[in-house]
Amino acid sequence: SAGPAVRARWLLAVADALDAAAGTLVPVARTETRLPEGRLSGELRRTTFQLRLFAERLHSGALDDVHIDHADPDWPMGARPDIRRTTVPLGPVLVFAASNFPFAFSVLGGDTASALAAGCPVVVKAHPGHPELSRLTAAVGREALADAGAPAHLLQIIEGERAGADAVQDRRTKAVGFTGSTRGGRHLFDLAAARPDPIPFYGELGSTNPVVVTPAGWAGRGEEIATGFAGSCTLGSGQFCTQPGVVFVPDADAFLAALPSLSAGPMLNERIGTAYTDALDALAARDGVEVARRVPGEEGQPDVVLLRTTADAVRNDPALITTEVFGPASLVVAYRSPEEVEEALAEFEGTLTGTVQAAGADDAVGLRMLDLLTRYAGRVIWNEWPTGVTVSDAQQHGGPWPASTAPTTTSVGTAAIRRFRRPVAFQNVPGAALPPELRDR
Amino acid sequence: SAGPAVRARWLLAVADALDAAAGTLVPVARTETRLPEGRLSGELRRTTFQLRLFAERLHSGALDDVHIDHADPDWPMGARPDIRRTTVPLGPVLVFAASNFPFAFSVLGGDTASALAAGCPVVVKAHPGHPELSRLTAAVGREALADAGAPAHLLQIIEGERAGADAVQDRRTKAVGFTGSTRGGRHLFDLAAARPDPIPFYGELGSTNPVVVTPAGWAGRGEEIATGFAGSCTLGSGQFCTQPGVVFVPDADAFLAALPSLSAGPMLNERIGTAYTDALDALAARDGVEVARRVPGEEGQPDVVLLRTTADAVRNDPALITTEVFGPASLVVAYRSPEEVEEALAEFEGTLTGTVQAAGADDAVGLRMLDLLTRYAGRVIWNEWPTGVTVSDAQQHGGPWPASTAPTTTSVGTAAIRRFRRPVAFQNVPGAALPPELRDR
Repeated sequence: SAGPAVRARWLLAVADALDAAAGTLVPVARTETRLPEGRLSGELRRTTFQLRLFAERLHSGALDDVHIDHADPDWPMGARPDIRRTTVPLGPVLVFAASNFPFAFSVLGGDTASALAAGCPVVVKAHPGHPELSRLTAAVGREALADAGAPAHLLQIIEGERAGADAVQDRRTKAVGFTGSTRGGRHLFDLAAARPDPIPFYGELGSTNPVVVTPAGWAGRGEEIATGFAGSCTLGSGQFCTQPGVVFVPDADAFLAALPSLSAGPMLNERIGTAYTDALDALAARDGVEVARRVPGEEGQPDVVLLRTTADAVRNDPALITTEVFGPASLVVAYRSPEEVEEALAEFEGTLTGTVQAAGADDAVGLRMLDLLTRYAGRVIWNEWPTGVTVSDAQQHGGPWPASTAPTTTSVGTAAIRRFRRPVAFQNVPGAALPPELRDR
Repeated sequence: SAGPAVRARWLLAVADALDAAAGTLVPVARTETRLPEGRLSGELRRTTFQLRLFAERLHSGALDDVHIDHADPDWPMGARPDIRRTTVPLGPVLVFAASNFPFAFSVLGGDTASALAAGCPVVVKAHPGHPELSRLTAAVGREALADAGAPAHLLQIIEGERAGADAVQDRRTKAVGFTGSTRGGRHLFDLAAARPDPIPFYGELGSTNPVVVTPAGWAGRGEEIATGFAGSCTLGSGQFCTQPGVVFVPDADAFLAALPSLSAGPMLNERIGTAYTDALDALAARDGVEVARRVPGEEGQPDVVLLRTTADAVRNDPALITTEVFGPASLVVAYRSPEEVEEALAEFEGTLTGTVQAAGADDAVGLRMLDLLTRYAGRVIWNEWPTGVTVSDAQQHGGPWPASTAPTTTSVGTAAIRRFRRPVAFQNVPGAALPPELRDR
């Protein structure tokens, strides 16, 4: 299989081709997703940056996972042979594109970039929310790869639910990457697990991304917190997997009163808009929940809604804070003591993020809440907001179920490559036959 | 949760207590497993070494998985916040002990050592093949941990198939480690995957560990190869997961004629002895397979058996080389060209090991076979034998299904700790609130 320098060249070729095709791709994306041009251009920039970052890291070897144990006749449990471990590609990876990031989590998005960087051929199941964009993007990628001398099978695209399900079960598929709903992801996860030869399924599913505002934080930074929350709640019409769906506050009346005016742009498509209102209505209908504020959307735009409940009610009905409402809505949870937050989270599940809005570093309640959220979250945040997931080496996007089906992995950042390589130990292998990274210098 | 220095102290306390109890434990193990004293003492040494190696690596920080990205306003995709990633324990781990290593893969074996090193409480499902030893070992471990100040729940033991299955489905269980048969492992894997909240299942299941003897290797090192193979095939009565169950040879008659006299000690218990003869008879009954040599065992000992077939027959019936016969038997596969070996392996699955017995580093067929086996194996071996799995940093014990249910992980060696920790990113968190390994120096 191709070495890291060759794979880096392929990734750069794809990034350059995407940039060159921006003028064609962005308008199609605009039509199919209703997302504004600025957002789409920014997302495309993120996508090509991501490809280039993997290329750079392949060049530097920073993502290598290598260990060399020379033979040791005195190894305490008995003489040890020469063993050197590196990683090799898992094999063909099936990527399910997401609807909400038509570039960054779609055909040439993070899963594809990390799988190609890992040396795995990729089959993308296109998302039906942007079919034409998917085909165009795949064509751009395939042409760039062909021009760069990559094998033709390296990137392929398929469409349709049935084709996707079949591909999960295809014996040639060695791993699956998925970003989407818990329901859809669970179905495919089950198919992967039920194979005669189960394969890794890396799914990023649901997340409610709780925020805890501490009393000291509220007292000292109330206005900033209210403004920041409103922005994070409605950014991208709330169609982000890290949207803060739950916010614990010490004073719900004051919090609601302090919020600035709220609005959200159109949702991705009608199906998602309907799912949003259905999920919202179902949550609002549960005992102890009321609609605290509803800002009606203009024609074709969703209502922005803040629901309201108490930590007591959550303790009695833990599903209140595990129910993801995909759209511009959040549940405001009033609490009276840190113990109440702990009790409310006792039955909580995994989440991509957990955020603390506190005063300074001496806010003891804030530190305690940070520790609490670390039990459930893949990323914990102090006095910033969960939306806006940077691509970097330290990034972690995942968490315990249902945030991820594979809690030891990340789907964003350069560590995402680890999902698609497996370790192989070489014992007593002659130097010339070793992968270059395992040879003696 | 306890920091690495504290966990290291606990592991050392357990190792010391095991060493001190050797005089009690080994005789009980001898009675329950029929394994010879030398083997058991050696295995106990391996077990305590393993605990101490994890302790040492916790002290040195060598197993940390840490990355720090400082804030960067000029990050090309947009200003980047301060993000620092480390790992945290997954939570309570359920370990299924194996029968064939009553110390090293049992109550205080590799899975338990790596989970405790990771900071996870462990519940061990004892193997019914050595119940009294399991209870004694658990008591030694629990007492040592209590004396060292560890919480009482850190190590627990349960018995019985039903209790094990229930524990896989218990909501408190966050990961499972398993070593055993493909059938038993598959059943538990399915239970873990079917949970409302699926959890990682790290199972080391079946493996046939193919060996390829090259023509040049046979010509130059024939006697050494025949002797080495005989030893590896019958070591521990063939009851090792890395036992070479399949050996491709260029000249089957010569290979069989060159083998030294073969014998094996008693098997672990009657159930395993019966399973051995059943599996052997089933394999021998398949088309194209014949019994080439059967060395009858003395009273209470198994027959050592070499079956024989051709690469052609394997191509027509790939199951011939994926069927694990747990005991002192191997299938000798005659081949006429490297292409025949490749074709015979076309439908092959995962294996813990793949071994090449070649001439020198210029044996082109050997290099080609090494490359071929790397596609299927977690460890590839050149001119040594697969049995005898050292515990070290570079060790890799796993592979594609069914060698492992989690091909990106290892169950032996210090990297096994990774299975039981998950990454968490800390964004904009004040220095004093960060885990020590993430603070600025």
